[in-house]
Amino acid sequence: MTRLEAWPLPGLPEVRPGDDLAALIAAAAGDDDDVAHKVVSKAEGAVVALRDVVVSDRARELAAGAGKDPRQVQVVLDESAELVRAEGGVIISRTRHGFVCANAGVDASNGPAPDTVVLLPRDPDASARALRAALAGRPAVVIADSFGRAWRHGQVEVAIGIAGLRALEDWRGRADGAGRELRATWIAVADEAAAAADLVRAKDSREPVVVVRGLGRHVTAQDGPGAGALLRPRAEDLFA
Amino acid sequence: MTRLEAWPLPGLPEVRPGDDLAALIAAAAGDDDDVAHKVVSKAEGAVVALRDVVVSDRARELAAGAGKDPRQVQVVLDESAELVRAEGGVIISRTRHGFVCANAGVDASNGPAPDTVVLLPRDPDASARALRAALAGRPAVVIADSFGRAWRHGQVEVAIGIAGLRALEDWRGRADGAGRELRATWIAVADEAAAAADLVRAKDSREPVVVVRGLGRHVTAQDGPGAGALLRPRAEDLFA
Repeated sequence: MTRLEAWPLPGLPEVRPGDDLAALIAAAAGDDDDVAHKVVSKAEGAVVALRDVVVSDRARELAAGAGKDPRQVQVVLDESAELVRAEGGVIISRTRHGFVCANAGVDASNGPAPDTVVLLPRDPDASARALRAALAGRPAVVIADSFGRAWRHGQVEVAIGIAGLRALEDWRGRADGAGRELRATWIAVADEAAAAADLVRAKDSREPVVVVRGLGRHVTAQDGPGAGALLRPRAEDLFA
Repeated sequence: MTRLEAWPLPGLPEVRPGDDLAALIAAAAGDDDDVAHKVVSKAEGAVVALRDVVVSDRARELAAGAGKDPRQVQVVLDESAELVRAEGGVIISRTRHGFVCANAGVDASNGPAPDTVVLLPRDPDASARALRAALAGRPAVVIADSFGRAWRHGQVEVAIGIAGLRALEDWRGRADGAGRELRATWIAVADEAAAAADLVRAKDSREPVVVVRGLGRHVTAQDGPGAGALLRPRAEDLFA
């Protein structure tokens, strides 16, 4: 019987650009699977000071009337490979990494200083692999962010960087409890782990790292393909 | 500090139409928040025998070439209020409840007998409320199903019926750890709870009920608005 446990890692200081996140986690850490959050971006310095942003006409136009800071809109455009929707101040785009989310994951809350925004890590799978390597003995690292969804209100945390955990568990072609074929069952376990971890964090609690125990059957010896394996190519996407 | 724990409820027998699910759960149960799965449909008899299905021309046409059973396609059409996409044997539709998912949630695996398909419960929020009432003392019930998503591979478990747990935690207008406003943060906690519970179930293990502990801050005295609160009206949906 599998038992899942998740709790926030206590005692982490506020993470600043250039901090050695692995060392901070190791100093505070428990002894099993970890789910780390976007604090990675801060440690890596994926932070933009709005005063340094040069605003384009397009950003000014999108910001106008929506009550948004055109500099912040410019950062969103810079982080986007393709706009999916831009209406009423909401920009939904495909990021350079291939994630489809609001505002290209650019976040004005929980920044390291006023008038800064935090970007997604440049390569979240590489960040997860580096963190896993530095946290020798930690079986897996997931870096997560909260994404909105089609058709359903609210956001859920999803995996944007993974090392040492399989992204998907494939039951297609295998049998159910009665021996019948499970045709479509293909579970995004890394996204479910990110969601589980989010349940123990309060958004104002400065608890950026969560320890998750009980994912053993999904832990892999190699780093694996990472969260890139979760990206559905447009041509196959009947949901979008 | 919040600590989340989830484990499958052991000792549940195979659930059949007409079974008293609450009694079965009560006989096996622990003592805290519960997440129950689509076994509810079976207990409620939301099961269709394919031999009784009258196939329309539309179902025959959609099934043709896709290698699908036209009777099963007919059941999907009967459960759908509106088709979102129908290509290559995959039907994505909005169900009568308002959920957008593949095959209107009609499931040929884990059925109670060969040549039967299991439907979603007719009114999953009502089912959750009834289960909560029957399980006096259980703080909350979530009924879940695995849905595919736009842009990302695989399925994640989401809440389709809720009683006693808030569907969403609203941080909009509240402050982050540094006192800055969290503009868009609105977390679908019931969906995250469903996802967490799914991590402890194997799809072939006949573990339809999972006990989840540690959701206390989201538990409500009243049943609440249920999973209906998670449905995003089309006019507001920039993601779809």
